[in-house]
Amino acid sequence: MNRIQEYIKKNEEGMMNDLFSLIRIPSISALPEHKDDMTACAQRWKQLLLEAGADEAIVMPSAGNPIVYAQKLVNPQAKTVLVYAHYDVMPAEPLELWKSQPFEPEIRDGYIWARGADDDKGQSFIQVKAFEYLVKNNLLKNNVKFIFEGEEEIGSPSLEAFCEEHKEMLRADIILVSDTSMLGADLPSLTTGLRGLAYWEIEVTGPNRDLHSGHFGGAVANPINTLCAMISRIVDHDGRITIPGFYDDVEEVPQAEREMIAQIPFDEEKYKASIGVKELFGEKGYSTLERNSCRPSFDVCGIWGGYTGEGSKTVLPSKAYAKVSCRLVPHQDHHKISKLFAEYITSIAPQSVQVKVTPMHGGQGYVCPITLPAYQAAQKGFEIAFGKKPLAVRRGGSIPIISTFEQVLGIKTILMGFGLESNAIHSPNENCSLDIFRKGIEAVAEFHLAYQE
Amino acid sequence: MNRIQEYIKKNEEGMMNDLFSLIRIPSISALPEHKDDMTACAQRWKQLLLEAGADEAIVMPSAGNPIVYAQKLVNPQAKTVLVYAHYDVMPAEPLELWKSQPFEPEIRDGYIWARGADDDKGQSFIQVKAFEYLVKNNLLKNNVKFIFEGEEEIGSPSLEAFCEEHKEMLRADIILVSDTSMLGADLPSLTTGLRGLAYWEIEVTGPNRDLHSGHFGGAVANPINTLCAMISRIVDHDGRITIPGFYDDVEEVPQAEREMIAQIPFDEEKYKASIGVKELFGEKGYSTLERNSCRPSFDVCGIWGGYTGEGSKTVLPSKAYAKVSCRLVPHQDHHKISKLFAEYITSIAPQSVQVKVTPMHGGQGYVCPITLPAYQAAQKGFEIAFGKKPLAVRRGGSIPIISTFEQVLGIKTILMGFGLESNAIHSPNENCSLDIFRKGIEAVAEFHLAYQE
Repeated sequence: MNRIQEYIKKNEEGMMNDLFSLIRIPSISALPEHKDDMTACAQRWKQLLLEAGADEAIVMPSAGNPIVYAQKLVNPQAKTVLVYAHYDVMPAEPLELWKSQPFEPEIRDGYIWARGADDDKGQSFIQVKAFEYLVKNNLLKNNVKFIFEGEEEIGSPSLEAFCEEHKEMLRADIILVSDTSMLGADLPSLTTGLRGLAYWEIEVTGPNRDLHSGHFGGAVANPINTLCAMISRIVDHDGRITIPGFYDDVEEVPQAEREMIAQIPFDEEKYKASIGVKELFGEKGYSTLERNSCRPSFDVCGIWGGYTGEGSKTVLPSKAYAKVSCRLVPHQDHHKISKLFAEYITSIAPQSVQVKVTPMHGGQGYVCPITLPAYQAAQKGFEIAFGKKPLAVRRGGSIPIISTFEQVLGIKTILMGFGLESNAIHSPNENCSLDIFRKGIEAVAEFHLAYQE
Repeated sequence: MNRIQEYIKKNEEGMMNDLFSLIRIPSISALPEHKDDMTACAQRWKQLLLEAGADEAIVMPSAGNPIVYAQKLVNPQAKTVLVYAHYDVMPAEPLELWKSQPFEPEIRDGYIWARGADDDKGQSFIQVKAFEYLVKNNLLKNNVKFIFEGEEEIGSPSLEAFCEEHKEMLRADIILVSDTSMLGADLPSLTTGLRGLAYWEIEVTGPNRDLHSGHFGGAVANPINTLCAMISRIVDHDGRITIPGFYDDVEEVPQAEREMIAQIPFDEEKYKASIGVKELFGEKGYSTLERNSCRPSFDVCGIWGGYTGEGSKTVLPSKAYAKVSCRLVPHQDHHKISKLFAEYITSIAPQSVQVKVTPMHGGQGYVCPITLPAYQAAQKGFEIAFGKKPLAVRRGGSIPIISTFEQVLGIKTILMGFGLESNAIHSPNENCSLDIFRKGIEAVAEFHLAYQE
């Protein structure tokens, strides 16, 4: 057992208590009734950052939820690392599928179970505890800054303006983020690319009130039928998105990268079994790993309309709604895609209904060159903690703020994520492996040691 | 003012109190939490039927909600009229759109406003008050029986067995039902045909849990996308239903009937304005009035799946659901259509999801010949009360039990409905015109007087 492993072992009980105190605050940014929880969670982080060794920590207002900023500046000549994380979490619904309460964390079978156990309270805690280890053992040679926001899960609407306003405060050589996942527990990897995102709500209005489907059915367009018909025209049988101009800026996956992706150990049968499907479906001409990381996608995230209670009410409803999103790839501009989407939906909407498309949020994709010194340091950290060199892979998720950091602050980001696919982030029974939690702290500590060289 | 009009005027306050006492009982058959209200409503009817002049009235058990039966047998040689109605109502949602409470009736501007004001508490009350008038004035020459059930809005699942078991008790020359509507307040009409109904719930399961749409989007079939695609393949661009075999038994509308329909005063612009749509949509080659009465239709009555809360949760959901129904025309067998539908949906379901189709309920269509003596009596009743001869029209709604009566009891039904399209049955702000309520009582009383001749 090395020095850092000993430190973790000795302090683990206290670490869990602190982490659990964060998780117990239901900081759900999507639901306005949790407004007070956002402030409470930010305040709790401020306290924990000071205890971990920050010299200063403050809760700062933003246009939306407050932002926690902390710093420990050890040497003006040394490298400065800005750690970004988010303290907000996704809604916990459907609650009935949780084996334990989402906001009452439990440790079972070597895992922490709770909303936020991974995304992102668990992962950001790894960053803070690695920092604490270095401070307490007098090993910290980098300047470290922390910025924790409370709106990542709703698209970080306030962070860009905050960055514009606080460029000097946020000045750094590199940004470090733990909010992504690895290929597997024994397959450490570093994320070198992220997909962008565009998200819309579609509202279809047919008649001005719910109608009796017997008296009107067959003569009046049904807004749910119409919404379904429009949605069915967004992806074709080959899994291609049909919005005119959608692929114009899509960077074709380079052959070298396709070859690297093909070498990633990936068992398609196991993958299907783990999510319980008989067949996969995606864009023709691409492999599963290409489809979920380097190619754009279109998903209906939610749909509702008409009678959804028990039994069988016959009704021709007035309204139908859907929440839909596209994952985008580098070079696709989410503003442009958002416009193309709205234009397309409007163009295919029949005159028998009224259709309103509301853009909800969006973000650009991101690519990180593996030649950056900070990337090399991260690679070394993983190699020491996990015993093998991490693979460089693009991932399908979106952290829109990463490309914003690059545009506004001019700083590249290293995505040192410790999640696993089985961690069920955004789903019931979110979890985090204690083993990987420990290795994560070690990897981040070793990053700092390597980066200062 | 004639004798019956005087009677109504004198007794109207008491009539309203009685009707309101029925409406205040939220007898929503679709919702199990209203079980006790069903019994309470049946008991209330029993009391009101006895007060109106029935010699006997009882609340009888059925496989589902209780059935109210009452009778007044005046002469074994006279004609026997069986009055059928239902005391259950539709759910009142969406509650926020009601101008007054759905189960606290209000009279405003000459209308009664409440759930059930028309369908069917208001209309069945017309039957009972006409009967009461005849009894109290010693004018009743027909035997009259009443059967009021509590499951019409959920497809009358128990009534067929009840009829099989009580054929003798229910023996009659004609069945009289007030549960349909007229073409307009100044356009009295009698319904001579009804559409049948088939209703299903579709459940589509994709992955075994909600997935992160970034990590899986593009590689895994989304059950909402898939459900929308399947629904979009049920009706084609010409408004034709694409289920193989669906039209096999459809009776083409006879030319003579099409000509009669074309003569019905109908203002399409007004119709569109009244429901707030710019354009209508329906089966190519048929007029609006044909489409909503003599031609089958397909409507999604409800749809739901994924995240439907506030904000924008990115998720690739595990499940998607829809409640869907077809209105059928005479000769289409709902059992056969139910099977064809399930087969079709199964045949177009991709292997990437699991699809379950659950038939919910169904009923056959109905046609009433205008040569029946009882039809002639009803026509006379309308003519006296409304001042003009009613038009004979087919309507698009379904009362599945009407064809069951014909099959099981061998009795034809006269549909003496007094509703208006603007009564908003099944919708918020259901209402009933007091003027038509009074004329309805007069028409039904005159029916009895004419039928006994």
